[in-house]
Amino acid sequence: MTKQRPTILITNDDGITAPGIKVLIELMQELGNIVVVAPDSPQSGMGHAVTIAKPLRLDKVDIYEGVEMYQCSGTPVDCVKLAVNKVLHKKPDLLVSGINHGFNSSINVIYSGTMSAAMEGAIEGIPSVGFSLGDFKQDANFEATRPFVTEVAKQILDNGLPSGTLLNVNFPPGQEIKGLKVCRQAIAKWEEEFDERLDPNGRRYFWLTGKFVLNDKGEDTDEYALNEGYASIVPVHFDFTSYNAIPTLKNWNFSV
Amino acid sequence: MTKQRPTILITNDDGITAPGIKVLIELMQELGNIVVVAPDSPQSGMGHAVTIAKPLRLDKVDIYEGVEMYQCSGTPVDCVKLAVNKVLHKKPDLLVSGINHGFNSSINVIYSGTMSAAMEGAIEGIPSVGFSLGDFKQDANFEATRPFVTEVAKQILDNGLPSGTLLNVNFPPGQEIKGLKVCRQAIAKWEEEFDERLDPNGRRYFWLTGKFVLNDKGEDTDEYALNEGYASIVPVHFDFTSYNAIPTLKNWNFSV
Repeated sequence: MTKQRPTILITNDDGITAPGIKVLIELMQELGNIVVVAPDSPQSGMGHAVTIAKPLRLDKVDIYEGVEMYQCSGTPVDCVKLAVNKVLHKKPDLLVSGINHGFNSSINVIYSGTMSAAMEGAIEGIPSVGFSLGDFKQDANFEATRPFVTEVAKQILDNGLPSGTLLNVNFPPGQEIKGLKVCRQAIAKWEEEFDERLDPNGRRYFWLTGKFVLNDKGEDTDEYALNEGYASIVPVHFDFTSYNAIPTLKNWNFSV
Repeated sequence: MTKQRPTILITNDDGITAPGIKVLIELMQELGNIVVVAPDSPQSGMGHAVTIAKPLRLDKVDIYEGVEMYQCSGTPVDCVKLAVNKVLHKKPDLLVSGINHGFNSSINVIYSGTMSAAMEGAIEGIPSVGFSLGDFKQDANFEATRPFVTEVAKQILDNGLPSGTLLNVNFPPGQEIKGLKVCRQAIAKWEEEFDERLDPNGRRYFWLTGKFVLNDKGEDTDEYALNEGYASIVPVHFDFTSYNAIPTLKNWNFSV
């Protein structure tokens, strides 16, 4: 008797037509039965947004031959919720999100739709992973990432993941990846600048831009591994409690 | 010489006209010089979304007499970024977000625009706190929350917050709040259901709904405190690394 092929849910935040998700589709077909539910338009920077004040559309589409695919009008998190509840009617064995065009290492995990989809999967008890490549371009070259994506997916299918944990996997751009390193999230932030312009009607508008500032000299971080040419794996959880801060706060004397 | 009055930035996710933000405005005026930068429309459930693919509007508005207020076309996180960079041109001494109409306790912290605004403040090094009341109604009664909001804001101004930490403060609905309890985030999730309907043109659409499921019997959680009639304070951080999971992952034998 052969083991049943796993069901693998694929999503992303760059939209269902992005080159990055095509790579995941090709690789995951080798490992299991795949279903794709992804946004009908780019959703980068959507964080853990959910659509609660308006209706959602979910339409079957026929993009790659023989692949069951649905596009959704909502956010990456909406896609996961709809996929589980209205398409699969069960939890898949694995959720893979990406491959994102652009890094989701360090503080980017917070803004990332790719990672929020994976986090939503983990909240629902699905072994989940987000993959990102440090190249924003539409024609980014995902070739070098392929064996690493397959390896991480296989390991999750074989070993499972610790309870309440998902993985944030980032790849350096370029032709060669030296290996995989398990890391912590580097301390960093974006220093924003806003481009200030006038629209054709003379009204002012702002466009967000910014500079990534790394405030972390640790050699155990995702940024360090990526800079050294390795792919980074950060285990992520969704308990945001700062346990270290609890004793300090308990010492406050509240007058109410 | 008297101590300079602190600068307090006020934002929310229910929009600049929400009753909850009016309460914060009234209370924070007593404690410092306030500036309000809030979304021009409701942004509940926006998580840590940022607007990167389109321009942002920021317009001065005159709603409450003598209060410097700006409405922004973006998300709560956009509001914080614009406030610091284009309105204040410096970090405020305190950022308060809310008071949200509805709980942001437990797993709701992840989906919450209110809390994402506070988290963005903390990332930028601003002492930040989000306040939420467990009543979704537009005419929610915030009366009982007032002394507690003032007390928490005062404590932050007096004591500061541990580095990289923000506060998630939730209030039970009703006329009486027994006190403040420092807690951890309860383990819980939403079990989604989607209301499936047909639009006037006969096309199918979905509307997200769901049931809150608490999987945590701990007596040190925010949910426990709220159920007992206390306000909950959870210290929150933005390092999402699951440190406990690192040793497990380091034991994986990668074949690449």
